[in-house]
Amino acid sequence: MLILGLDPSLSCTGWGVVRAEGSRIAHVANGQVKTDPKAPIAARLSHLVTAIEAVIAEHGPDRAAAEEIFVNKNPQSTIKLAQARGAVLAACGARGLEVREHAARLVKKAVVGTGAAEKAQVQAMLKVLLPGAKPAGADAADALAVAIADAHLR
Amino acid sequence: MLILGLDPSLSCTGWGVVRAEGSRIAHVANGQVKTDPKAPIAARLSHLVTAIEAVIAEHGPDRAAAEEIFVNKNPQSTIKLAQARGAVLAACGARGLEVREHAARLVKKAVVGTGAAEKAQVQAMLKVLLPGAKPAGADAADALAVAIADAHLR
Repeated sequence: MLILGLDPSLSCTGWGVVRAEGSRIAHVANGQVKTDPKAPIAARLSHLVTAIEAVIAEHGPDRAAAEEIFVNKNPQSTIKLAQARGAVLAACGARGLEVREHAARLVKKAVVGTGAAEKAQVQAMLKVLLPGAKPAGADAADALAVAIADAHLR
Repeated sequence: MLILGLDPSLSCTGWGVVRAEGSRIAHVANGQVKTDPKAPIAARLSHLVTAIEAVIAEHGPDRAAAEEIFVNKNPQSTIKLAQARGAVLAACGARGLEVREHAARLVKKAVVGTGAAEKAQVQAMLKVLLPGAKPAGADAADALAVAIADAHLR
């Protein structure tokens, strides 16, 4: 069972694929999709769709997951984030993948055992849980954490 | 000059195409894209992308416009709306269309002369400004209003 974890954002969307067999989880691949901050927003969102569709075509995940989002203190950044998420989810839908949503607290709990973990702690545990994985960056690491959580939570 | 106005939402996205030549504006086409409320969200967003890409392929607009959105009282509905908007904008980007954003107040002002107009007033003025246009529904009407405003505002 291949699981695609996603951490969508307009500037840099992280993705990570893990293989789950029973309670065993192994790293398959991860990466980040960056968009040109100077490009029009429609072009940036279209780039996210194309890039995530290519990831799905290459790795053929059986299912996908992303963290739930909520409206934060900055309304404009929430809207930007949700728009990017819409593009990334549409890419999954185009490839017949449903995207399960998990609360950030549950993702942390699945990876480090507590919902109140710091980001650094999550990244440290990733090295333990997925030996040999070299996340392309913080967003790819977050995406791998979501994929691990999805393996535990379903 | 063909202008595509868009009124994105997850359940029903309105679109309208007008032809602008100098100060003359004429109706070309309009419609609404509905998604199945029982389908997974990724599939619904993907349907929006496919349908809006088809509209663009059929009518070949030169430019596109949508109303600005803001975080409203219901955070979850804001996120749903922004996700749908992200999918619709990505569809425009895939076809090389940039999407200009106009404040709701300016759209109303362009159509009825005041930014504080009621929805019914906007729809009544549409009949005057675009004789012969039969909006497919309230969302298509809103999309036509955005297209008219874009013709005035650029």
